[in-house]
Amino acid sequence: MIEYRLDDLELIGRNGKPLRIKQNPKWFCFGIDAVLLANFARVKPGDTVLDMCTGSGVIPAIISAKTKAKHIDAVEIQDDIYNMAVETAKMNESTDYISIIKSDIKTYKGDKLYNCVTCNPPYKEISGGTISDNNHLAIARNEVLCNLKDVCQCASRNLKFGGLFFMVHRPERLCDIVSFMRESNIEPKRIRPVHSYGDKGPVMLLIEGRKGGNPKLIFENPLVIYNENGDYTDEINNIYGRNA
Amino acid sequence: MIEYRLDDLELIGRNGKPLRIKQNPKWFCFGIDAVLLANFARVKPGDTVLDMCTGSGVIPAIISAKTKAKHIDAVEIQDDIYNMAVETAKMNESTDYISIIKSDIKTYKGDKLYNCVTCNPPYKEISGGTISDNNHLAIARNEVLCNLKDVCQCASRNLKFGGLFFMVHRPERLCDIVSFMRESNIEPKRIRPVHSYGDKGPVMLLIEGRKGGNPKLIFENPLVIYNENGDYTDEINNIYGRNA
Repeated sequence: MIEYRLDDLELIGRNGKPLRIKQNPKWFCFGIDAVLLANFARVKPGDTVLDMCTGSGVIPAIISAKTKAKHIDAVEIQDDIYNMAVETAKMNESTDYISIIKSDIKTYKGDKLYNCVTCNPPYKEISGGTISDNNHLAIARNEVLCNLKDVCQCASRNLKFGGLFFMVHRPERLCDIVSFMRESNIEPKRIRPVHSYGDKGPVMLLIEGRKGGNPKLIFENPLVIYNENGDYTDEINNIYGRNA
Repeated sequence: MIEYRLDDLELIGRNGKPLRIKQNPKWFCFGIDAVLLANFARVKPGDTVLDMCTGSGVIPAIISAKTKAKHIDAVEIQDDIYNMAVETAKMNESTDYISIIKSDIKTYKGDKLYNCVTCNPPYKEISGGTISDNNHLAIARNEVLCNLKDVCQCASRNLKFGGLFFMVHRPERLCDIVSFMRESNIEPKRIRPVHSYGDKGPVMLLIEGRKGGNPKLIFENPLVIYNENGDYTDEINNIYGRNA
């Protein structure tokens, strides 16, 4: 019997009850990356959404609560994490509009094309850095089971023409992101850099691409996580729903 | 007889006298872009430097004063602007270490390969926006006589393996910059975004690429031009030598 921890998303689900996420602290637990990505995604009412590398299913949970998406398919490759995400969807009574799918994004092809695709992928190339002994951590952090090219190709294969792809990634991979997205006929259209502190370089990039889009990038203002006192900025508190 | 204006760079040249730049206010006059680029370029003692699209020759003038570059070749295609830059180099007694060359960067190939290449190119694609009736302005601002691909190819053709390319450009062109640099075997290694105000998106990007470099980008902290009061920030004043 696997023991899970229950994390409160501080969000009310479509059933009117607080959304919670099952996580196993020994595996990879979602971070602010996933929360910022779910809030960065511009999902319109009635949209269908695919979340790749969904893990605990936190991104579909947030998108279901914050948008009027019609349906969200969420793909996870690892058996035990898939099972945990299924339990979370049942617990949140969200199985009518969130489907957890056990599949490999290297080959995944939905029955229909999606309006939006989201992904918080593993960041590190396998050549770069030590790989964790913990297999779950290794797969979540390193390009063991899929790499950036796989991610961009799966997004393109599953997006409608003109559909939007939203990803969070490390700034050091920016050139690879541009190259692989363009190779996959997805044009980067919007980048928002995320900075721990405003006077430091970004620690993450939020990227929006459009399938079949024309070149012209909008580079947005910095999203700063901490103010000078080390507290969350107003924008971060807003995203977490703590200023309401 | 063409009338020039004399602008003081607030810098002391290698001859111990203040550096001045001849400009014709009816043509394109250099902006903060050129000054920031010249200060962004990491030129080591003894380096040879090529400045493409040099215009008034402001970038070689600043680099000659702020670094121990061995020699700077500066290429300009337009006759009258070339003549003006030659007069500036004579006036500043810098002709021993700055050569103004009348040439077209689409074909330019120096006698030897350079350690560094710099460029403050025209920013706008011809398809994008109105082209100025003033021919000098049009050529300086729009890709009339050269485009981003020409710029990257000329940099690569003239750089030593491992040599550095420094460019300033618009954020909206970032994906084209990455694509054309990589096509030209120059890997973007460092980006510094320039923001008018810290809470707004960047208005320029300073980009460093390395010929034959490996992928891995350093995304630096924002260079902010104005503080909340609308005055230059300390960093900008430092660059202009006004805090000394």
